[in-house]
Amino acid sequence: MVELKEISGGITAVPGFMAAGVAAGLKKANKKDVALVYSDNPASAAAVFTKNKVKAAPILVNMQNLTKGEARAVVVNSGNANACTGEQGLKDAREMVQVAAKILGITSEQVIVASTGVIGHNLPLHKVTAGIEECAGRLSDKGGTDAAEAIMTTDTYAKEYAVQVNIGQKPVVIGGMAKGSGMINPNMATMLGFLATDVNISKDLLKMALTTVADETFNMITVDGDTSTNDMVTLMATGTAGNPLIEEINADFKDFVAALKQVAMHLAKEIIRDGEGATKVVTINVKGAYTQKDAQTAALSVANSNLVKTAFFGEDANWGRIFTAVGYSGAEFNPSRVDISIESSAGKEQMLAQGAGLKFDEQKAKNILAEKEISVWIDLNAGDKDAVAWTCDFSYDYVKINADYRT
Amino acid sequence: MVELKEISGGITAVPGFMAAGVAAGLKKANKKDVALVYSDNPASAAAVFTKNKVKAAPILVNMQNLTKGEARAVVVNSGNANACTGEQGLKDAREMVQVAAKILGITSEQVIVASTGVIGHNLPLHKVTAGIEECAGRLSDKGGTDAAEAIMTTDTYAKEYAVQVNIGQKPVVIGGMAKGSGMINPNMATMLGFLATDVNISKDLLKMALTTVADETFNMITVDGDTSTNDMVTLMATGTAGNPLIEEINADFKDFVAALKQVAMHLAKEIIRDGEGATKVVTINVKGAYTQKDAQTAALSVANSNLVKTAFFGEDANWGRIFTAVGYSGAEFNPSRVDISIESSAGKEQMLAQGAGLKFDEQKAKNILAEKEISVWIDLNAGDKDAVAWTCDFSYDYVKINADYRT
Repeated sequence: MVELKEISGGITAVPGFMAAGVAAGLKKANKKDVALVYSDNPASAAAVFTKNKVKAAPILVNMQNLTKGEARAVVVNSGNANACTGEQGLKDAREMVQVAAKILGITSEQVIVASTGVIGHNLPLHKVTAGIEECAGRLSDKGGTDAAEAIMTTDTYAKEYAVQVNIGQKPVVIGGMAKGSGMINPNMATMLGFLATDVNISKDLLKMALTTVADETFNMITVDGDTSTNDMVTLMATGTAGNPLIEEINADFKDFVAALKQVAMHLAKEIIRDGEGATKVVTINVKGAYTQKDAQTAALSVANSNLVKTAFFGEDANWGRIFTAVGYSGAEFNPSRVDISIESSAGKEQMLAQGAGLKFDEQKAKNILAEKEISVWIDLNAGDKDAVAWTCDFSYDYVKINADYRT
Repeated sequence: MVELKEISGGITAVPGFMAAGVAAGLKKANKKDVALVYSDNPASAAAVFTKNKVKAAPILVNMQNLTKGEARAVVVNSGNANACTGEQGLKDAREMVQVAAKILGITSEQVIVASTGVIGHNLPLHKVTAGIEECAGRLSDKGGTDAAEAIMTTDTYAKEYAVQVNIGQKPVVIGGMAKGSGMINPNMATMLGFLATDVNISKDLLKMALTTVADETFNMITVDGDTSTNDMVTLMATGTAGNPLIEEINADFKDFVAALKQVAMHLAKEIIRDGEGATKVVTINVKGAYTQKDAQTAALSVANSNLVKTAFFGEDANWGRIFTAVGYSGAEFNPSRVDISIESSAGKEQMLAQGAGLKFDEQKAKNILAEKEISVWIDLNAGDKDAVAWTCDFSYDYVKINADYRT
């Protein structure tokens, strides 16, 4: 197990990275809504984008720009998603990139762009560009938190994290920020994650590391099962840590992936903790699946079930809903071999053994579910693959937040 | 278009069918909880069952018993789903069948069995069998409503419907009852549908008629996207109407399917109208898909989206959420060709044209969404296939109903 040290500073904990976040007038009440992140050093870059066929303009622009696998800046606005905005939306996203590139003295292909907020309205571009210019003047190696605040929508707090880890006997930093489920005027729950590191790694392996880690962290969380038009996670790597270049799947690569997963998982769980209306974080562990895909499918099916999520809100040990969600997931298993338990700091209680309900201690189950962090253990007893998904409970407030008028 | 006349009597509107529903003590407050339906005449039978891998005991018993495609009785209990109850559950379901068969003087293979209610508890079998015996003594050709009441869980009203239609110049009756999303002590939202007719039709075509119709009605409704362990729809046909035997796909078959679809759709929409916490019925129309499957996938994706459903509860013209749900559905289409409109008795308003948001009349949209019955029109402009799904909005009460303790 690789040893990690948590450090402060978020994305600007990474040497050479500066950031800023300013209020440019897209959000109300003078809240920060434009963020800029800049690397003093050239950097490789990898990204994963939403699989939604309806992709917002900034996603489409990034898909073109990032083909070289290099980036030195990230520019983000909140308050407007620049999604379903047609040709004008694409022009606006490109203009955000060009304004940032020009003022930072880098090329357009080195700028990652993102937007989050209301869908279907054109950006107030003059406000955004003024915000980018103001950010450029305020870039600071202490600016990570300002940037993390500026990418928030209805997130109730900024999400950032950084760790230090020794790789190839050199200290390497991995830092990042994320935003979760929220909307400025009720709209999409967009997930954005921006990660940076000074590790020395080839572009191919950087891409592999991000894809692997995103599949096991950001892609295994769910607040409401709706996949946004704007979701993206990016990772920039400068190589300045001076570790021997990672260009094959060796021990250094595995250490880096483990550390990156730690950062990504921390941010992903923060998104769940701050999910709309969430009062609990629930970890769904599936063991003993035939395949990795079966394990993930089963875990996400349980994590996405409204009936399971409302039961957790009600602190109801309703294992029938959990078993049912495994049943309709599409995963391969034999129902008469399945075991289900719940666990929290208050203890662990098994409720289903070999597909049949057990007489369990209702009071103990109640105590377990009264905690804020709960784990569900589902053993399919079919094979040796496992997966973990994270979700939140489903409260009145989810409906309240999402039923409000946009205006 | 085949001409239908709505008639009263539900499942007992069909000549030769009798039914009863009694309170056997499974539900509280002396509510009816055991139902029996009996056909004086031999009848063919077809059924569709839940696709959940976790199947309740009565589903497993029916899958064995119905292989001959014949049935003369349906026995149902509410208050306990007899699901995840192991070997004892199977014994209990078989015992329900045998008790009904013996008292009615028919074979076990002629009895359809169903249960709905709480998962994971063994049936109080003596209460159920006493209920079956009491039902047998009360069978009546006016008993459809009592039976429809006895299969309810948290349904707020009984659901039954019947029509008369001329087929092969003979009057044919199709009647049925259904129950929807509800739970006795919060648990699964089980859908049960029992249909009967006196049409004269071969077993193969009866099966084809039910499968086709179920796919376009019961399988296109969604309250919360969770597929129960107990879902089933059955159709019995006595042939006593005296129409020329339908044994090929001819005009008579098409007329019968059209009439059956009308009955099934009526019952399916009643399930949505009475969905947990529902305040509105929303019809999702998808047009212009490449394939039928694409159209159904897109329609169900929108119908299942929590964000779409909460927006309807909030009467918010949030087309971005609708478009997004189409986007992640997996259906094939070009986002830049999609049109979206909303419609109700207050008018129709287009909000998306060729993938870009329109400036629309917010007040008119608000008036449209203030109605109780709303239609969404999504034109993919890709091909010529279409599909319709039905859903309800998502209110505080859904969370309330489903978060309550089981006890």
